[in-house]
Amino acid sequence: MATRWFGAPVQRNEDPRLLRGQGVYVDDIDLPEMLHAAVLRSPYAHARIARIDTQAASSLPGVHLVLTAADLGDVLEPSPLLIPHQALTQPRTQLPLALHEVRYVGEAIAFIVADSRYLAEDALELIDIEYEPLPVVHSLTIASAPDAPLVHEGVQGNIAAHLVQSVGKPDEVLANAPHVIRETFQIERGAAMPMECRGIVARWDQYEQMLTCWISTQAPIPIRNGLSAIFHLPEHKVRVIAPDVGGGFGAKIMLFYPEEILAPFATMRLGRPVKWIEDRRENFISTNQERGQRHEVEYAFDEQGLLLAVRDIFLHDTGAYIPYGIIVPVITACSLPGPYRLKHYASDCRVVYTNKVPVSPYRGAGRPQAVFVMERIMDRIALELQLDRLEVRARNFIRPDEFPWDVGLVYQDGGPTRYDSGNYQAALDKLKLALDYGSFATRQAQARLQGRYLGIGIAYYVEGTSIGPYEGARVRVEPDGRVLVATGVTSQGQSHQTVFAQIVADQLGIEPQAVLVTAGDTQAFNWGVGTFASRAGTVAGSAVHLAAVKVREKVKALAAELFEASAADIELAKGKVFVRGAPQRSLTLGQMAIKANPLRYTYGESARTLAAMNLAAARPGPALPPERGAPGLEADGFYSPAHGSFASGVHGAIIEVDLPTGMVSFIKYVAVHDCGRLINPLVVEGQVHGGVAQGIGGAFYERLVFDETAQLLSSTFMDYLLPTAVEIPHITVEHIETPSPLNPLGMKGVGEAGTIPVAALFASALDDALSPWQIRIREMPLHPCRLHEILQAAREQPDS
Amino acid sequence: MATRWFGAPVQRNEDPRLLRGQGVYVDDIDLPEMLHAAVLRSPYAHARIARIDTQAASSLPGVHLVLTAADLGDVLEPSPLLIPHQALTQPRTQLPLALHEVRYVGEAIAFIVADSRYLAEDALELIDIEYEPLPVVHSLTIASAPDAPLVHEGVQGNIAAHLVQSVGKPDEVLANAPHVIRETFQIERGAAMPMECRGIVARWDQYEQMLTCWISTQAPIPIRNGLSAIFHLPEHKVRVIAPDVGGGFGAKIMLFYPEEILAPFATMRLGRPVKWIEDRRENFISTNQERGQRHEVEYAFDEQGLLLAVRDIFLHDTGAYIPYGIIVPVITACSLPGPYRLKHYASDCRVVYTNKVPVSPYRGAGRPQAVFVMERIMDRIALELQLDRLEVRARNFIRPDEFPWDVGLVYQDGGPTRYDSGNYQAALDKLKLALDYGSFATRQAQARLQGRYLGIGIAYYVEGTSIGPYEGARVRVEPDGRVLVATGVTSQGQSHQTVFAQIVADQLGIEPQAVLVTAGDTQAFNWGVGTFASRAGTVAGSAVHLAAVKVREKVKALAAELFEASAADIELAKGKVFVRGAPQRSLTLGQMAIKANPLRYTYGESARTLAAMNLAAARPGPALPPERGAPGLEADGFYSPAHGSFASGVHGAIIEVDLPTGMVSFIKYVAVHDCGRLINPLVVEGQVHGGVAQGIGGAFYERLVFDETAQLLSSTFMDYLLPTAVEIPHITVEHIETPSPLNPLGMKGVGEAGTIPVAALFASALDDALSPWQIRIREMPLHPCRLHEILQAAREQPDS
Repeated sequence: MATRWFGAPVQRNEDPRLLRGQGVYVDDIDLPEMLHAAVLRSPYAHARIARIDTQAASSLPGVHLVLTAADLGDVLEPSPLLIPHQALTQPRTQLPLALHEVRYVGEAIAFIVADSRYLAEDALELIDIEYEPLPVVHSLTIASAPDAPLVHEGVQGNIAAHLVQSVGKPDEVLANAPHVIRETFQIERGAAMPMECRGIVARWDQYEQMLTCWISTQAPIPIRNGLSAIFHLPEHKVRVIAPDVGGGFGAKIMLFYPEEILAPFATMRLGRPVKWIEDRRENFISTNQERGQRHEVEYAFDEQGLLLAVRDIFLHDTGAYIPYGIIVPVITACSLPGPYRLKHYASDCRVVYTNKVPVSPYRGAGRPQAVFVMERIMDRIALELQLDRLEVRARNFIRPDEFPWDVGLVYQDGGPTRYDSGNYQAALDKLKLALDYGSFATRQAQARLQGRYLGIGIAYYVEGTSIGPYEGARVRVEPDGRVLVATGVTSQGQSHQTVFAQIVADQLGIEPQAVLVTAGDTQAFNWGVGTFASRAGTVAGSAVHLAAVKVREKVKALAAELFEASAADIELAKGKVFVRGAPQRSLTLGQMAIKANPLRYTYGESARTLAAMNLAAARPGPALPPERGAPGLEADGFYSPAHGSFASGVHGAIIEVDLPTGMVSFIKYVAVHDCGRLINPLVVEGQVHGGVAQGIGGAFYERLVFDETAQLLSSTFMDYLLPTAVEIPHITVEHIETPSPLNPLGMKGVGEAGTIPVAALFASALDDALSPWQIRIREMPLHPCRLHEILQAAREQPDS
Repeated sequence: MATRWFGAPVQRNEDPRLLRGQGVYVDDIDLPEMLHAAVLRSPYAHARIARIDTQAASSLPGVHLVLTAADLGDVLEPSPLLIPHQALTQPRTQLPLALHEVRYVGEAIAFIVADSRYLAEDALELIDIEYEPLPVVHSLTIASAPDAPLVHEGVQGNIAAHLVQSVGKPDEVLANAPHVIRETFQIERGAAMPMECRGIVARWDQYEQMLTCWISTQAPIPIRNGLSAIFHLPEHKVRVIAPDVGGGFGAKIMLFYPEEILAPFATMRLGRPVKWIEDRRENFISTNQERGQRHEVEYAFDEQGLLLAVRDIFLHDTGAYIPYGIIVPVITACSLPGPYRLKHYASDCRVVYTNKVPVSPYRGAGRPQAVFVMERIMDRIALELQLDRLEVRARNFIRPDEFPWDVGLVYQDGGPTRYDSGNYQAALDKLKLALDYGSFATRQAQARLQGRYLGIGIAYYVEGTSIGPYEGARVRVEPDGRVLVATGVTSQGQSHQTVFAQIVADQLGIEPQAVLVTAGDTQAFNWGVGTFASRAGTVAGSAVHLAAVKVREKVKALAAELFEASAADIELAKGKVFVRGAPQRSLTLGQMAIKANPLRYTYGESARTLAAMNLAAARPGPALPPERGAPGLEADGFYSPAHGSFASGVHGAIIEVDLPTGMVSFIKYVAVHDCGRLINPLVVEGQVHGGVAQGIGGAFYERLVFDETAQLLSSTFMDYLLPTAVEIPHITVEHIETPSPLNPLGMKGVGEAGTIPVAALFASALDDALSPWQIRIREMPLHPCRLHEILQAAREQPDS
């Protein structure tokens, strides 16, 4: 296979448009006669709604519609449970608008549509609601207390699910091991904070009897399917478009956020387009979050530092509802073993409701927590045995000849947790070199003499990516020689317009710039799942590849017929199709597309002179012989992996802690990553850079602070410190390529990777920097203030 | 094959919507911010444009755009020559707006877009144009005169094309035959006069960079392709929709009517939707017409009435331009032999320009002229030899065992004129019976005794239908069990939503009412040609059938897997899929569609509880195994005939002529038709009824009267007498079914059939009714006034 473009650092097709400010996001959609919506949200984390009076709001001039739960008719149903699981015995999902009870601050109660957003917000103030406050579950500790108040009546202990998995004989090994340690690790909630908040524009077209929705979403096809079911419309009468999306990170894949039902409901009621755009305050309190877990871990190891067994009993905070099922804790459980040969492992998770915004996967999706636990374990073993931290890891690695490696757990896709390929030692060696690991001890010691506290941290992870069930793509050559790719996986910044173009360009002998990628428009392509779980590049990319191969075969067969040559002798290069060794027998790819269309144009002396039917020139016999199948140079491809792939990587960083303030600077950051064969190193590096930045934010700067009534106190960017480019260090990215045997191009996913190890790495580096005080980090995130507290406490203790 | 629905007189799926006034025609499209256009048309049939001043029009408040040729940039190109032909040596097509010269009354000169149509029309009045009138070619006689003025400079003799075809040795046979007659037949222009005039709404969507056009057209896909080329847009960025279309009859298939380029141009310029709706006066002068021909025929026959040879030298009026090529005269030439064994035939046609609106096919498309000539010949032979008119025809018929029969001419599709099947005598026998032909002579004689002049007329025809190049269709089962059919052939009343539904219903075991047919929306399906040439039912119907068969196979394969049965034992009936003999192993078709989607809903206790990804329930292995190919119960089908089919039929009627007024009443009308296997007899009868009504209108009531400056004098329905239901007789339709071997369901086309023989039949009946005066009708149409003239002249002549 020609791979001129696959693997090359091609500049992004997206950039000319996006860098010039020509992106089109949902809020850029400005339709004639459009109305604007605002949402009344609960100010209480838990309350009964005794009475709602919307009279005054409805009477405000310019208000077109005031919706409460009572107005929704048969649409007032709990949102779907996306992913059932047998361990999920008490699923509770949310109504589009709360009826009798609210369960988190920010839960939607009313939806107002008015001439402007200003008016709609004014009208919200006129709604009179009588609340009866109820006891609040604001933390995992409260939720799991014996006398805890209940988030949902009837769900005893607030337990939505109890998930137990086990490999080997962990109890036996733990009982007899030479070294056993028990620790508790706490991870607080984090938030995705995309640059673009959520939003929807919904339009009902009375002529077509068609509902069109522009949604800032990661999964337009499932939303299309769901809206079709909810509103009893044929699937082809619902079109969902994800236009440019300014970041999703998992928080934008949900069926359904209330507004995604309410805006369609309103436009169908009013016959005018309805726009709702989430503001940042709303994003803080009504867009799903993740991360909150508490792990009680018991682990055993031998004198050589080999990890013998782990028992992890953890609580997972799912918030007030569980629309997404228990995917996050399932991933946590499956990800904990990481790159290590863990033969005895017990995982016991209780998924508990709290009076907070619901939880769904956020970049990393349960993996940062698992990696935090396991890498803390590895550091602790090294510490206990006075071994080098990298050496302990190396001793525990699964070796390259042991793949495929079965972890022994059922993965999130229902299939086995089976590592397809990898070379963990190779990545570690690269990291050591890039980080100048060998000389660090000296450098650290010298710095300490100057009162400067440097630390080196490392963290390894294995990341399941590229899960099914499937994706598809259509590839079509246009008469002007450009190639259209349509697929269901929308982009929130993943560079689909470039990487899919590269895959097609290789097959059709054109430049990637000649490929137009349409992703995330159900009218262009309506078979597929969505962009999440680091799967789009691999799963949709494979489908694109398969479709492009089919088109290539069609081109070759037709060219063979036209040029009276063997298909084996047909070449495609530089936008031309020709006979090898006889380049004068040649047509452009666009001309081939015209030839392949029985209703063909002929571009003669004038481009306008076209013979649309070209009947007179027809030869005897059918214009489209059965063996040619479909007309045109168009083909669909579908790819469905047998199970997910497993990417991996190791990050290392050198930090410096400013003792008086608790401020931390990153002096050096190296990421070595293996996502199989790279489509485009520029894009992979961009993904890793972004992921690391988000990881550093989540580990250090950003913090969701809730009070005891579960009110979010840090709900503005004045209080919630999103890092800027200034705070993020230069990041060196190195690649290892162990091709996946599961797909035709050997790819694995990379979207989430950068974020996953950062919290663990940060803890590792802090432990190292602060080793004089024997500080052991067991919580995340650690903002400067908290770090300062820990330091103060440690420095007040006598050395132990 | 189960054929519960194919062939059944199923009530139309269209009717509930259309009969309640819920049809959506182009003028019903009322978009926000829409502007309205009007067209300035030439008042001269031929003139030079010396000067155009649009200043005053542009300054009128509310006018947004005034376009003349000078404003069109690179869009100012002659419209495409649709169907080239080697005999067409002087093709001339029209500019979207006339630049230096106008060549027919009604030619577009300027296009004004304003807040309302009223304003736009007012602004037209303010455009100041200086014309220099040129000599006018207003008739075929003038056009072909030696000193004729030229419609196009440089086109000598106004001859666009000279088409000569020949079979056998006509010259030799004519020179030696026992009987040779020479006659001239004249057919004047006719017009399609659909209930709905033409119209377009064009919208440019800046977000999608997409042009959407609603056009009252018969061929949205070719228009989409053409607009893409003209405006340099990718094909997938142009969407053309033919919504409900109130009649087309051929006049609505054109690339391009000027407004179909100008409205898109204007919306792209203005960023607001633009609507143009043709009014009836515009339809009379700017929508294509047909029919005008003059035939000089020489024919030979023997004593038994066997036709030995025909030489037909004819002129064809193509109007001022020839965008559609010479399809009409090609069809005339090929249709002339009809059902008769004509072994020696010469056809010589000169296609000439005139200063009239251009010609393109109108229902029947050159065939009514050919049938008029040939059936006049048959009647004359009977007269000359004193034989029965039916007997003469019977003696000349091609016999059933002679099919396939090669006429020996190249047909309009470039393939052979090869009759695939037929049984001409059987149809004639049915007609005789239904018309009570045997007793007519007595009845006629008795009536004459009372001073009443009855006549019986008959006319036979063979009609090429179902030409390629191809059509396609997509069939998709929705989760609610309804089935979507999308195809490129739009309907102008042909009942596609019923007949395609019947074809699918048979394959999938459902009711036709459960099938939703989307035709004529390039975004739903963009491969295909259009609805014309009596081809949609056969060509697209076959594609629909092939797609439905594929879906059925998918259903059976999946059911076999789910039910653990053999695919051969799976049955589809009454919306269910089950194992034969074990009906408890059953799912609905909609449930099967859900099972076939790897991203599936589960409709559990609540319809809202859906497992969009159903990952947890996934079995090991790919969700979409390669052998299953594409997901869902969806398939495309394409059908491309080797060449056209040939339908046939014979009409007979008894008329009464009121001598003093020339008024004619139809006393009885019988049509016997063979369009192969019928999909739906109700629909076929409706087509025949409509065709006969249009034929009677065209033969008797309707007349386009041009003066010597080529001004149309009868350009309102006060002057142009469109017949109403009162004027049209009861029509008895009988069927013969000789299946076509060319397609899987044995169909032939029927759209145009009813119209074709009416003029010939009318002449035949008039000759018979007026036999006392030995009147020989050699012209069409014959309105009462002209008939009165002929009668007067004959009665003033002494009997010859």
